[in-house]
Amino acid sequence: MDIVSQHRSFGGVQAVYSHPSNTCGCEMRFAAYLPPQAADRDVPVLWYLSGGAEGFDAAVARAGFQEHAARRGLAVIFPDVAPRGDSVARCGTAADDLGAGAGFYVNATRDPWRPNYRMYDYILHELRGLVLDHLPLEDRHGITGHAAGGHGALTLALRNSEMFESVTALAPVANPTSSEWGRRQLSTLLGSDETTWSVHDATLLLDELGWKGDILVDQGGDDAFLDLLRPQALAATMARRRQPGQVRIQKGYDHSFYFVNTFAGDHVQWHAERLN
Amino acid sequence: MDIVSQHRSFGGVQAVYSHPSNTCGCEMRFAAYLPPQAADRDVPVLWYLSGGAEGFDAAVARAGFQEHAARRGLAVIFPDVAPRGDSVARCGTAADDLGAGAGFYVNATRDPWRPNYRMYDYILHELRGLVLDHLPLEDRHGITGHAAGGHGALTLALRNSEMFESVTALAPVANPTSSEWGRRQLSTLLGSDETTWSVHDATLLLDELGWKGDILVDQGGDDAFLDLLRPQALAATMARRRQPGQVRIQKGYDHSFYFVNTFAGDHVQWHAERLN
Repeated sequence: MDIVSQHRSFGGVQAVYSHPSNTCGCEMRFAAYLPPQAADRDVPVLWYLSGGAEGFDAAVARAGFQEHAARRGLAVIFPDVAPRGDSVARCGTAADDLGAGAGFYVNATRDPWRPNYRMYDYILHELRGLVLDHLPLEDRHGITGHAAGGHGALTLALRNSEMFESVTALAPVANPTSSEWGRRQLSTLLGSDETTWSVHDATLLLDELGWKGDILVDQGGDDAFLDLLRPQALAATMARRRQPGQVRIQKGYDHSFYFVNTFAGDHVQWHAERLN
Repeated sequence: MDIVSQHRSFGGVQAVYSHPSNTCGCEMRFAAYLPPQAADRDVPVLWYLSGGAEGFDAAVARAGFQEHAARRGLAVIFPDVAPRGDSVARCGTAADDLGAGAGFYVNATRDPWRPNYRMYDYILHELRGLVLDHLPLEDRHGITGHAAGGHGALTLALRNSEMFESVTALAPVANPTSSEWGRRQLSTLLGSDETTWSVHDATLLLDELGWKGDILVDQGGDDAFLDLLRPQALAATMARRRQPGQVRIQKGYDHSFYFVNTFAGDHVQWHAERLN
């Protein structure tokens, strides 16, 4: 695991690392923020999954998690959103709106993406093991994310509740099997057999499995992508199932990082109260 | 004055505006953050001048001023760093390290930059008048900035103490007449007569004029550009002149926005205490 860059930030360190990934069959990068408390002891981990349209760089620079993580004593791990490199088939472009590096936090089963697009296993197993081995982290985890990353956070946590103590999401892709965009993403990576899709749909998973704790979801009321995000499906399922938690529609906010960093402090606090 | 974009942010609005500038002879853009308090009353203004290597966009996205300005009830105006457009001679490139849009917050006296590169007059007079006319602002002003923008903040305030109540700077170009990079910038825009340079050197201005209040300067201890910034010249002059204020060398911090946003809260608080 090599250090690509590091910067002092709010008394801690914001770093980018590179490592060879067996799961993805290529060199992978990720970012990690270690708060000042990590100089003296292991700290719990908050996973932040980025949206599909950008790599982790944008979230590291703009989501504003460092200040709050420093105050609350959490590390933040920012995985990349897709495998990279000349040997990796490119899936999705900015033009077809699947995102320039569309991994959608699944293990792809269709060629040519099958060998490399294994972000689900990569994050849950390989990267989790790597950071626990190499960084001063407690084996206690929360997970959040924005847009497609919110989808990733919810689906990874719901399917693996023993691996996470807390889950939140910001403008998540909440019900992709029922949106045109989500169906395109799932059929591209998993093929046309829709029975394989439901384990990657937060609303269907919540309906089937529930969640052991409470859930926080924030959604901008002026988000231009409400049709593809479908927060109403998740909110209805939470209410019908009596799932503890809250879906907050935030008046006037859009889908941008101005929305994400406005509520970053609430999400870090939520996780800190459940991890510490 | 046209709205280019606007986003809800921390209960206020982060907008970008465009307007024709008589001073610069071209269309100019700037960004403005209006805190939630501006919905009910006029609020004081904090000017944030960006470094020469980037436009205002990077600071708007990454400096993290919105959260603190919302808490303290200040507007933040982010002017651009140079005139723009096809009719404007390009001054400086990333390659020659004068910055891709080098205006250096002076009124240029050399051709071909003389007609458009008038950022000093533009900010102090045209833009100040424009925002006071069109936005819910009190006519009370503080000013700060990063790198070349810190130079701009200090030099504009020191020369126009009746126009600003407070001044701070983050890693400012503090003594450009004595650094190789600063001398290149000044000779490019103002010519080789060094007697015209001293009114654009914060250290020389402070020595001559002092400042009516106290001054806050933050400087990363691991900044790679200490030779061109020369904080030691400013610190020595402040101490010799018994100028109230503080120059803080921040251990481990570099020149990046990770440094700027770590200390953004301190600077906004400093100005709020002197403006409110």
